Amino acid sequence: MTAERHRIAVCPGSYDPITNGHLDVIARAAAIFDEVVVAVVDLPVRKGGTLFSIEDRLGFIEHSSAHLPNVRVEPFSTLIVDFAREQGANTIVKGLRAISDFEYELEMNQLNRIQTEEVDTLYLMASPQYSFLSSSGVKELATFGGNIGGLVPAEVARRLQEELWR
Amino acid sequence: MTAERHRIAVCPGSYDPITNGHLDVIARAAAIFDEVVVAVVDLPVRKGGTLFSIEDRLGFIEHSSAHLPNVRVEPFSTLIVDFAREQGANTIVKGLRAISDFEYELEMNQLNRIQTEEVDTLYLMASPQYSFLSSSGVKELATFGGNIGGLVPAEVARRLQEELWR
Amino acid sequence: MTAERHRIAVCPGSYDPITNGHLDVIARAAAIFDEVVVAVVDLPVRKGGTLFSIEDRLGFIEHSSAHLPNVRVEPFSTLIVDFAREQGANTIVKGLRAISDFEYELEMNQLNRIQTEEVDTLYLMASPQYSFLSSSGVKELATFGGNIGGLVPAEVARRLQEELWR
Amino acid sequence: MTAERHRIAVCPGSYDPITNGHLDVIARAAAIFDEVVVAVVDLPVRKGGTLFSIEDRLGFIEHSSAHLPNVRVEPFSTLIVDFAREQGANTIVKGLRAISDFEYELEMNQLNRIQTEEVDTLYLMASPQYSFLSSSGVKELATFGGNIGGLVPAEVARRLQEELWR
Amino acid sequence: MTAERHRIAVCPGSYDPITNGHLDVIARAAAIFDEVVVAVVDLPVRKGGTLFSIEDRLGFIEHSSAHLPNVRVEPFSTLIVDFAREQGANTIVKGLRAISDFEYELEMNQLNRIQTEEVDTLYLMASPQYSFLSSSGVKELATFGGNIGGLVPAEVARRLQEELWR
Amino acid sequence: MTAERHRIAVCPGSYDPITNGHLDVIARAAAIFDEVVVAVVDLPVRKGGTLFSIEDRLGFIEHSSAHLPNVRVEPFSTLIVDFAREQGANTIVKGLRAISDFEYELEMNQLNRIQTEEVDTLYLMASPQYSFLSSSGVKELATFGGNIGGLVPAEVARRLQEELWR
Repeated sequence: MTAERHRIAVCPGSYDPITNGHLDVIARAAAIFDEVVVAVVDLPVRKGGTLFSIEDRLGFIEHSSAHLPNVRVEPFSTLIVDFAREQGANTIVKGLRAISDFEYELEMNQLNRIQTEEVDTLYLMASPQYSFLSSSGVKELATFGGNIGGLVPAEVARRLQEELWR
Repeated sequence: MTAERHRIAVCPGSYDPITNGHLDVIARAAAIFDEVVVAVVDLPVRKGGTLFSIEDRLGFIEHSSAHLPNVRVEPFSTLIVDFAREQGANTIVKGLRAISDFEYELEMNQLNRIQTEEVDTLYLMASPQYSFLSSSGVKELATFGGNIGGLVPAEVARRLQEELWR
Repeated sequence: MTAERHRIAVCPGSYDPITNGHLDVIARAAAIFDEVVVAVVDLPVRKGGTLFSIEDRLGFIEHSSAHLPNVRVEPFSTLIVDFAREQGANTIVKGLRAISDFEYELEMNQLNRIQTEEVDTLYLMASPQYSFLSSSGVKELATFGGNIGGLVPAEVARRLQEELWR
Repeated sequence: MTAERHRIAVCPGSYDPITNGHLDVIARAAAIFDEVVVAVVDLPVRKGGTLFSIEDRLGFIEHSSAHLPNVRVEPFSTLIVDFAREQGANTIVKGLRAISDFEYELEMNQLNRIQTEEVDTLYLMASPQYSFLSSSGVKELATFGGNIGGLVPAEVARRLQEELWR
Repeated sequence: MTAERHRIAVCPGSYDPITNGHLDVIARAAAIFDEVVVAVVDLPVRKGGTLFSIEDRLGFIEHSSAHLPNVRVEPFSTLIVDFAREQGANTIVKGLRAISDFEYELEMNQLNRIQTEEVDTLYLMASPQYSFLSSSGVKELATFGGNIGGLVPAEVARRLQEELWR
Repeated sequence: MTAERHRIAVCPGSYDPITNGHLDVIARAAAIFDEVVVAVVDLPVRKGGTLFSIEDRLGFIEHSSAHLPNVRVEPFSTLIVDFAREQGANTIVKGLRAISDFEYELEMNQLNRIQTEEVDTLYLMASPQYSFLSSSGVKELATFGGNIGGLVPAEVARRLQEELWR
């Protein structure tokens, strides 16, 4: 039996914006690991657009995960495995919803493991009530004035309506 | 940030017999968690046959994981979430190889989470060189005298040939 | 625009036993069609076992769908398309949960359409909370003393415990 | 048994352009429901381009479905469930061809059902001869001068050649 | 550019019984390779039952492929890669119908390639009209008196009715 | 048994750039067929960008396949089946890595077979060590300074770093 180490997990994503499905994965990771770093992709604008700025996306997560004491939020703009090592994390945690997630993650997983053997990735199956939920689906729905309550935190719902209906 | 806890993960399976793909998952879990309990299904014979007895299956795993100090092996015959709680584990770790694994695990995952919210399941993607490897495939191959070196520990390969060719 | 016809849909299955997921599909079909016939496979015993008798399986459905006035329950032992025509139905309705359901149903669909052009099959996507639920999963869970409340009607839960624990 | 109601189904899509696979689904829906409304997405140009104008897309469907007396064609630019309710329809009917269709539709299905419980979606499995057919595939083929006879109505084939080869 | 060699492909299966989908794959392989050996699994009875004897299964294929001069039929009871080498073939050809075929074949492919580097496997996508067709589906259909004309050769249809209805 | 013909296979792709996975498929095709033509898509610039010019992409393949005497490289800008016929090839060979490849290829396969019955397509399963490898994944990795040695030929790795880091 090994000595207890401080176990840090990184939850990466673009979070444009965070959904209640993302929050479910983050909270479940926070129950398993000592510390969770939510890592938000921060790419130069020319790399293709997010709807919300990096500041907004970080803020939404900070507010909606404030009740989870062992969670913090950071931007990143390098390879995720390099970011994880900088944070002292040897684990990445991601949610899996569907076959297409699975295939994409399988590919990413192998490419990441070629980069370093020090960081591995673990997956959580999406909870049924969030298995159909994605940031892009929510944005699509909001564009047409659909009801997005229950899908995203209240602050995000309000800001989506401001962005997409002005 | 929470205090470090002793983190135990359970790796369940029938392991009939253990393959090098199973060992890869167990070793990767042992690098992430403080302690790993390999849990081997022990059902009454009438429940349908394993090729190897529970004693053999436990032994194969003990011998082939002897170099991993934070791994131990136990039989179980209850719901896996109940077994995990008895062991003080709040995490189950399983390998994912293919779409059919994914679908089965998704179903199991939700049924298990209905049983208790205290135990969650994390998945590791199979390493490419083991992505095609299953106990049943190895047994099939051994039946026809195929080469199973590199697929299972040496002791298992020898015993498979004894069982299937006598 | 055509004149209104009396539209009958058939919901076939072995229902061994009925789950709350089956009931969800039946109720949704009953909201769309004028009449729903729940068709329960009744095969000779040698064809491989159901846990519950045809009488039990019919009874469970009758009791749990008693609140749906346009639903009735019938056994069948022929090709489902032949049964549908005998009932005056030109539609079969089935639930889809996962990729493996999809593939199996796609195959059945084409084989059925070769039998007759008069009967077509429509599919309902399983509700998220039932997307992981199958009769065999429930029986497996019950065998190990798991909690199956919320997964099947109360009468079925009680009978499963009697059957599997005596 | 409930009284017969006038059952309207909505078949939504961008139909850019309609294919013989779309027509197969529309005709099968028209055999099951009293009335079928083919609903054609009409989004502002900035939302990303269709090859054909909304007028063209509506016209192609009207001409090729003229033999189906209980089918009519309408543009829509709201949430599909809102459009369905305006039309007095409680059912949406869509075709399913492949796993990727299935996953997308499963996600859309759950998002739509959150909007309203009054409208449900039913799926028809694509007929084998159209299981590989999509508007984008036809456009790709036409771009390279491929033979698209048998894949789309004759008028559409002619117009595709005009658009893509001028 | 290498000198032309005599290229032999092996098409293995249990062919219990051969379907028109199998014949489509065999004929397409015969158009690509110089010689095609249809290899029929011949296992001891205790290995689990085929409906038809090895003699019947071989005979059905011989009769239905008699118009293809470069096709011959052989039983085999070893690893398929060993059989291929005995026949002087460096290629196995199989049909792919669905995701579940794909996953199974991917696994088999890698296990076979571990056995020898001299034999590789090529796959043909099933023609749409046979994409839903399997020996087990045909047997199921025949058991219930369904119409199997167009799915199997006439001789097979007649014999299936004799076997399953006597 | 037919007389030996000179068997030519075409391996089409955009190869932007070629990876070691592509090379594995090309080498395996070259072991099965008398001659292999690697066909590189050459579309007008407005059709959407490749990172490397057609000259670069052709050159990378020529250099990295120079050890395979029966392989040559050609650009094409027509339907692949038309190109195959011009080359005297009746076979296209492609690699299959994942479910999404399978679905796309199934669709393409049927569209191609409608164009001509003279050309058929055969698929090779990706070798495990390349099952996660795609040109776009490599480019993504290179953009972030990841290690791409072992994934592409050395010349390609050098040029990727020049293109993406200047």
